[in-house]
Amino acid sequence: MGITRTQVAIIGAGPAGLLLAHQLHQIGIESVIVESRTREEIEGTIRAGVLEQGTVDLMNRLGVGDRMMKEGHFHEGFELRFNGKGHRINAHELTQGKYITVYAQHEVIKDLVAARLRQGGTIHFNVGDVSLHDVDGSSPKIRFRPDKDGELQEIHCDFIAGCDGFHGPSRPAIPQSIRTEYQKLYPFGWLGILTEAPPSALELIYANHDRGFALLSTRSPQIQRLYLQVDAKDDIANWSDDRIWSELHTRLETREGFNLIEGPIFQKGIVSMRSFVCDPMQYGRLFLAGDAAHIVPPTGAKGLNLAAADTQFLVRGLEAYYKQGRPDLLERYTEVCLRRVWKAERFSMFMTNLLHRNFDHSPFERQIQLAELDYVTSSRAASVSLAENYVGLPMQYD
Amino acid sequence: MGITRTQVAIIGAGPAGLLLAHQLHQIGIESVIVESRTREEIEGTIRAGVLEQGTVDLMNRLGVGDRMMKEGHFHEGFELRFNGKGHRINAHELTQGKYITVYAQHEVIKDLVAARLRQGGTIHFNVGDVSLHDVDGSSPKIRFRPDKDGELQEIHCDFIAGCDGFHGPSRPAIPQSIRTEYQKLYPFGWLGILTEAPPSALELIYANHDRGFALLSTRSPQIQRLYLQVDAKDDIANWSDDRIWSELHTRLETREGFNLIEGPIFQKGIVSMRSFVCDPMQYGRLFLAGDAAHIVPPTGAKGLNLAAADTQFLVRGLEAYYKQGRPDLLERYTEVCLRRVWKAERFSMFMTNLLHRNFDHSPFERQIQLAELDYVTSSRAASVSLAENYVGLPMQYD
Repeated sequence: MGITRTQVAIIGAGPAGLLLAHQLHQIGIESVIVESRTREEIEGTIRAGVLEQGTVDLMNRLGVGDRMMKEGHFHEGFELRFNGKGHRINAHELTQGKYITVYAQHEVIKDLVAARLRQGGTIHFNVGDVSLHDVDGSSPKIRFRPDKDGELQEIHCDFIAGCDGFHGPSRPAIPQSIRTEYQKLYPFGWLGILTEAPPSALELIYANHDRGFALLSTRSPQIQRLYLQVDAKDDIANWSDDRIWSELHTRLETREGFNLIEGPIFQKGIVSMRSFVCDPMQYGRLFLAGDAAHIVPPTGAKGLNLAAADTQFLVRGLEAYYKQGRPDLLERYTEVCLRRVWKAERFSMFMTNLLHRNFDHSPFERQIQLAELDYVTSSRAASVSLAENYVGLPMQYD
Repeated sequence: MGITRTQVAIIGAGPAGLLLAHQLHQIGIESVIVESRTREEIEGTIRAGVLEQGTVDLMNRLGVGDRMMKEGHFHEGFELRFNGKGHRINAHELTQGKYITVYAQHEVIKDLVAARLRQGGTIHFNVGDVSLHDVDGSSPKIRFRPDKDGELQEIHCDFIAGCDGFHGPSRPAIPQSIRTEYQKLYPFGWLGILTEAPPSALELIYANHDRGFALLSTRSPQIQRLYLQVDAKDDIANWSDDRIWSELHTRLETREGFNLIEGPIFQKGIVSMRSFVCDPMQYGRLFLAGDAAHIVPPTGAKGLNLAAADTQFLVRGLEAYYKQGRPDLLERYTEVCLRRVWKAERFSMFMTNLLHRNFDHSPFERQIQLAELDYVTSSRAASVSLAENYVGLPMQYD
């Protein structure tokens, strides 16, 4: 068994693992990433990406933001559409100058991987049998097989960062007896399509319609991303392209003068929605970050941004440990992360409940939902509250 | 049968009916009030009273605010207590100078009755068999028996104002076929006490505790009003004074240095909580105002204030009708009222869900509630939003 050593072993080359490696590199802490998928897979899986101002700032501080600044779309606001009217939330003005940056997650990953490899960083792609060992001791280890079935390798390290997503092996390495998992499943699914068409609007449109939620977003001048609320258990086979377009027209063309532009659909699929939080996010020398520790429904566009925030808290703790011999910030990692995580869970659930049509709701509850939409679009304080969550709450380190 | 005539016949001498009569008097429109209870009953039923700034301003404009300004308590803020800490919402500062005025509802009623009688206004107390007739014609009538069982009297009028509360005869006079009633019942009850004790705090304290909600409010230097969340079906016989005090101490004394001062309890009872809205609030020449049309749970302290707002919308419509021959504002009465009502329903439900312990909630939902409390007390925008609803949203006339 080949044995190597690093300071921080990172499991997972998603946004959390890659952003962590870059930040550690910047302060002279070495790390190694292992990733079970191939580079082509992680760079080719098309994922939405709405970046908070803080995530954009982090990318730029790390020197990996050049392409994002060129190719990303900087939105000053978005639209809430209901009752036949559109209401723009001018997030830029409401948050004193912050932007919403639309730049797909796989593009972020491409930039982070390329830059990390240019720095001479190590990323083992396509590994198999990843396992964690001695996480509660002073010398934890991870094991894996290169190229899925190569000879077992072991990395000895000071810390393990579990950035391996909801289904990875890191979270289960925290003993079940000390782990509380909070969860909520929604009765909603999102049917998402990618279509080759020009943009129907320049900013995102979130539509609350009697027949269900719809979301219009733009990916590029040629490619658009649209979503429809469907039953979480629905089958994509039930949705012909014609049916999808018909439903999108109905739910989005409620505002006079708005026309949805069609194009060929080249990808479609249904995803379910859940909220999930693991507490604690750490055990011994293992620290979880991103989807390994928490999942949000996509309505608030918080997933990638929460991962970025986790890594910033973790880097701060590791820096204090290595540079000042202070373990206290690492000890408080869960507490500091979860305060932000729960607020993002709250916001994601709020947006989900605000925008989706819950067919289990009583007529009273439906009216309350419409009153909430009326309120958030007619009160400046409520608009600011919505906008500050959307662009990202400030980082709170205590 | 004795027949008299007036312009507006008002059923009910609660805050809605009395405020309406005063406003009509001010613009030279005559009205008569009939009330099924005695004057002693309506003035003697001790009810809480948290007045929005707009309600206080209305009382003063009507020239009936002198005692309120002397004896009322003007609060600049209130406290949200949870997780062992108190968080003050400085509503005065957050809303650019508005106050929360604590002045009991029966005191408001005493002032309005006395002033109305001084003006020579007519209030028939203690009437029986109130009924509405020809509300969809041009000459509606109400009938009643003086002193419960006197000879039937009839009032011919141009309009009927149904200000007779949730159980009065006005709402049922709108045909069921055109009436939608929205309702939500809560699993919470409020056990309220009046105690002879000095104030334990100068401002209201809303406490979210693992065992349930508690509310401390002050009525006067000698009398305090406190509430405990209990099961909606609980029986007051289960609650000895000792048990009440013990529970109040547990739920309120979570902040260091806070001591709850006990005193003899001279009134106690349990009320259930509901949300209710009737749409439309008008039919022909009948207009509902206040509890006749909508009920809110007490957590947001909105009941009396919504009634006051309804009457202002109605007076505006009646003034346009009588002075300019314009019926359009009356025609839009329901629409304009309900926009405000639904926002108040939203806020009252939000406050209720924020503060009560819902024992049906999953651990995830309990954490979301605590995150909501953390958010509203740590974000200025969220605090402003809470405060602006608490002191009262601006009147919107379109």
